[in-house]
This record gives sequence, structure tokens and C-alpha cells, in this order.
Amino acid sequence: MNIDGRPTRTITPAPDGEGVLVIDQTRLPFAVETRLLRSEQDAAVAIRTMIVRGAPLIGVTAAYGLALAMREDSSDPNLDGAVRRLTATRPTAVNLAWALARVSANLRGLEPRLRAGAAFAEAGRIAEEDVASCRAIGEHGARLIADAAKAKAGPVNVLTHCNAGWLATVDWGTALAPIYVAHDAGVPVHVWVDETRPRNQGAALTAFELNAHGVPHTVVADNAGGHLMQHGRVDLCIVGSDRTTATGDVCNKIGTYLKALAARDNGVPFYAALPFSTIDWTLEDGVAGIPIEERDAREVTHLTGRTADGGFATVEVVSPGSPVANPAFDVTPARLVTGLVTERGVAPATPEGLLGLYPERRRAA
Amino acid sequence: MNIDGRPTRTITPAPDGEGVLVIDQTRLPFAVETRLLRSEQDAAVAIRTMIVRGAPLIGVTAAYGLALAMREDSSDPNLDGAVRRLTATRPTAVNLAWALARVSANLRGLEPRLRAGAAFAEAGRIAEEDVASCRAIGEHGARLIADAAKAKAGPVNVLTHCNAGWLATVDWGTALAPIYVAHDAGVPVHVWVDETRPRNQGAALTAFELNAHGVPHTVVADNAGGHLMQHGRVDLCIVGSDRTTATGDVCNKIGTYLKALAARDNGVPFYAALPFSTIDWTLEDGVAGIPIEERDAREVTHLTGRTADGGFATVEVVSPGSPVANPAFDVTPARLVTGLVTERGVAPATPEGLLGLYPERRRAA
Repeated sequence: MNIDGRPTRTITPAPDGEGVLVIDQTRLPFAVETRLLRSEQDAAVAIRTMIVRGAPLIGVTAAYGLALAMREDSSDPNLDGAVRRLTATRPTAVNLAWALARVSANLRGLEPRLRAGAAFAEAGRIAEEDVASCRAIGEHGARLIADAAKAKAGPVNVLTHCNAGWLATVDWGTALAPIYVAHDAGVPVHVWVDETRPRNQGAALTAFELNAHGVPHTVVADNAGGHLMQHGRVDLCIVGSDRTTATGDVCNKIGTYLKALAARDNGVPFYAALPFSTIDWTLEDGVAGIPIEERDAREVTHLTGRTADGGFATVEVVSPGSPVANPAFDVTPARLVTGLVTERGVAPATPEGLLGLYPERRRAA
Repeated sequence: MNIDGRPTRTITPAPDGEGVLVIDQTRLPFAVETRLLRSEQDAAVAIRTMIVRGAPLIGVTAAYGLALAMREDSSDPNLDGAVRRLTATRPTAVNLAWALARVSANLRGLEPRLRAGAAFAEAGRIAEEDVASCRAIGEHGARLIADAAKAKAGPVNVLTHCNAGWLATVDWGTALAPIYVAHDAGVPVHVWVDETRPRNQGAALTAFELNAHGVPHTVVADNAGGHLMQHGRVDLCIVGSDRTTATGDVCNKIGTYLKALAARDNGVPFYAALPFSTIDWTLEDGVAGIPIEERDAREVTHLTGRTADGGFATVEVVSPGSPVANPAFDVTPARLVTGLVTERGVAPATPEGLLGLYPERRRAA
């Protein structure tokens, strides 16, 4: 999407073939800086230090990292070593292991001298597939926004939680893709952006993205969404999904479930937008079956931001000595989800709904 | 309640008659400092700069401020002037105007030389009545916690939102009073403390209070409560109320409604604890009828906290240029409220329930 009117991706091959350019997301939202990754080591650092974040983007970065490794040393031992080292940068990221497996499977049958080029090409294909998938989610979801626009005067108010935008992918994003497609098509849309404590991805990243692309939006504390819905100020909710059960339960950033409850209580449609890769066909009951990551208390007790003099500071905001719990995700039961928006279309959050979009899974079941 | 094992109130007459001692709440939770208010001007500054906050405590501070004014100049013009000046310190605080009207009505019939003494005595009575009212709320609410303790092994897990503790009153608090009474009686209780963005009164004040008194507790982001309830980790919710309709709708800090929805969805009892003074007998529909204060965007965009070197800093955490909305309260409809805990007992959140506790209002209706 656009930054200052210029179409931008989170990751692109450098024009001079020197390496791969990424937006340094640790500097957002206060500065837009690009980093050149010249080596496997650079790619590993970028993933580990969250210069890049978001499952799809991590996968693409790792794929390019493997290509950079092959440029340095395309031997079998280095191929194995690079896959191992890159996998270890974020051990729980599914897309990372998947992307590395896909590229390395491609390279093993090739002569070493061909591996670097093939790896760059495959990483590029993974990136393009991600863009196409996000764009398709956007097209399907934008119809929901366009329909809502026909039913009212003024902009369609969409509430979203966390950052499932283009910064988490290569371009377009998932939950934000329908918003970008609708906005670019001239549908009037305004986004309520949950700040998304404790890591503030909404206030920092979603707000930045929307502002940079020119989409009207307003940041609110996570506590505000219910009140907004009670007063008719939200027309629909669209959130992302980190993991979706075969029955349509949606595991997403902590607090998503509360918004789904408020949407149900106020008759507001609640959608999750997600690529195929987040669907876990083995799971029936998300609340019982999905383990929820407990993260560092420091994410709650401390915040880092910009000071008045343009520097940065980290401040402690919780009463010292008080214990803190920090569950990172929650599960929204399918009964609260109006529909799932995937690259194949919009379906009810039910086993039949998902199998309707992915009929090939019917045979597997 | 206790700080470091020593029973403490938010406001007390100074032992040497020099004035009134208050805890400086702007220094909490990182330092416990007492300020001596020696004059009407000191009291006005304490209220305006939020050295004291919370409706009951503001009322008591204003009453003492009027007494200090009478000590300086007990003439009729200064009585009128002091009431006017003190009322203007927090114009929307109902308790403030009520306390000043009560004390000044008492003084008008007295000779000026008797006014300072009478005002100190009346301010003291207002403080003691507040303590008795909060203590009674605590006794009634503690029975709910004790009953929950009988039904399970281990501590009763109570979730609360914002700070309706002793720091907002003279002692005991409202929502936290049942917790203190239960804890002091040996009932095992553990409190989930919502951090309560944007002003973080939960993380800063409720956590401080509970820690200082020795009540087991855990701070969580506001987003976490629904997840905790889904997993059976909350036995009941107790929140305060800034305004309660005759039908039992509860207007409280923004985000309360989301917790009430999660409580209902998971079969967790949800109580509001409130003194008589918050009940607005003229209102039937809280969502339609209660105007919600929209506060400064800076409360969302900036946070102040302690830095690693022990200093303080204010940091910006929202993407620059993004608009922000900051509604300060929301309304939880009575249908989601299991019961109202007042100084007279526990009643259903219905017109009949409230009239049962306040039968004198039946004649008025």
C-alpha cells in the first residue's frame, strides 16, 4: 500500500541485486526506514529482532534469507545449516518453517551453482502468492463493506483489533485488505482502530498504515468498542486470525473475543479475514484445544515511546511489586462469528462453511 | 486500609491542628507522600491537580477546604466566595457541590467566630459517614465472596475494573470494600486487576492498594478478562458505578460493559458496588440517557511512568497524525448486572430491587 503516495511493500529485492530491502518495523510509527539485508545473517537478525514481523512476512524474509545464504555458499552443508539457523530465529512461526521447507526442497535436486538464482526466484513466488492471496481476501471482504455502504448514508465504520494489515504481510494484509480495496474503489470507509494492549500494534502499526495510505480512521482504547457499538457507531468488525479451527473458532490477539461479544449484543456483523494457512483442520474446539501463549509481564508493565525531545524512553506504568499475567491470544467461538473471509470467498463460520470453500478437504476428512 | 501494615486514610485532620493531611495520589504508585493542606488555596490546588481524586474523597476535601477558609476569614462574603471557588475546582463532581452545600448551610446560621470549628466538625462527619457507608457496602458484598468461597477450593477470583478502592474514598472504597472485608475476615480471595486504559487506574492505583494491604492480585491488560472467564479463572466481577439509573443500568469506567458481556457469556456473576449517592432516580434508560464525557486524546496518545533511572518521563505511543477518540465511561445495561451492592444490602438490578432497598423512594415516585 502507499506511504506518502508511493506504493510500498514490506519486502522487495534490492534493484541492484545487492540483497533484499525491508521496512524496519521497530522504527514505526515514528520513522520509516528501510534496511538492506545483504546476508543470511542480516535476514536472521531482521526476523529475530522483529525488524520484520507478521507470519507471512517472516516466511518470505526467511525464504530470501536462504537465497542470500546460497549466494555465499551453495553447498549441501550450508543449505542444511542455513535452514536450521533460520528456523531457529522464531521457532514457533509456522510460516517460517513452511517457507524454508518449500525453498529448500526446490534446491536439493539442483546443482549448487544454480541454487542461489532458484532460491531468489522461489522466494519471489512465495511473496507474489502472498500478495495475490491477500488481494483476494480484500476483494471478497470489500463486497461486505460495499453492501454496508449501500444500506446507509456516510462512511461505513469498521472496527478492527491489532494489526492484520499489509505490514504483517507483503502487501494488502488480511483484515485490512477489504478496507484498502473498498477505499481504493471509492467506497467511503472509516476505521475504528483498537490500540491493542499490551503491545499496541493497533495504535502503532494499524494507525500508521491507514494514515500512510489515506484511509480515515480513529484510534481508541480497547475498552471503547462496546460503547461505540451500543451507540450505532460501528457497522461491522473485521479482525485477523492466527489460527482457525475446522469448526470456525477464531484464535486472534487477546481482546478479540470481547469485541465479538459486543458485536453480537448490538447486532453488528463480525468477520474474521484469514488465509487458508491459518486453518487448523484437526481442531474442533478452539477454547479447549488451542494453547494460549503467556508472554513476558514486561509487555504490560513497561511501554516504549517517543519523548517530547524526539528521543525514545521506556517507562514503567504498573504499581511495582504487583504480579502480572499476559495471555497473548483468545478464542472467539464460531457462534459469535458472522463469517470467515478467505482468499476463496466468504463462508459461515461452520464446518460446512469452511468445507464449502475448501471442498478438497472433504475427501481428507 | 493498610500501607506497610499501618492503617491509613486518604485524608485526616493533621494532629497539631495545622490543617489536613492527604496522600498525594499524583505520586502513586511509585511513592507514598503526604501533603499538608494549610489553606483553602491548598485544598483547591489538591482537588484541581488530582492530588486527591474520586468523588467521595473530593467532597470531603472540599468540606475541609471550606473549614480552612473559615479559619482564615469567617465572614459571609468569604463563605460565599470559598464555596464558589471550591466548586469551580472540578465543576462536574456532584459530591463536591453536595458537600459544600451541606457544610455552608450549617455555617450560615452561626456567628462567624464559631464557623471554623463547626466546619471542621461537619467535614469530619462527612468523612465518617463515607467510611461507614463504604464499610457497609463491604460487609454486604463480602457475603457474596464468602458464599463463592464455600462453593470451591482455593481462592475466590474476583475481577475488577478501574479503581473504586479506598483511594477514591476516605477508606474501604466501594468495589474493593467487599474484597477488603472478605480478606480481613480470612476468606481466601485473589483479584484480577484490569489495567484500565487509558488512564491506568487499575494498574497504578488498584494494584497499589491491594499490594499495600496484602491482598493477592494480578494485573492484566483490559483485553484479557474474557479469556480468563472462558477458562473458569474468574468467580465473580465487582465494579464501581459513577451513576446508576432507577432501573439498574450502571455507568462506570469505559470497558466495564465488555466485562459484563463476558461474564454473562460465561455464567460469571457481575455486581456493581455503589453508594446511594450515585443513584439517579430520574433516569430509566442509561444507554440513551447518560451523556458520556469525551476526554482529551492525549490520555490515549501519551503515558507517563517511571524510567529505569528512577526519574519520570512521558512517552507518545500512538502513530503521529492519527485522530483519537476517548470516551471515558460506558453503560452496562441492567440485564447484564447480577446485583447491586449498596450500603443497605444487595438487590437485583431492577426498579423493584432498588426500591426494595430504598422504600422511601417509593413515595417519591
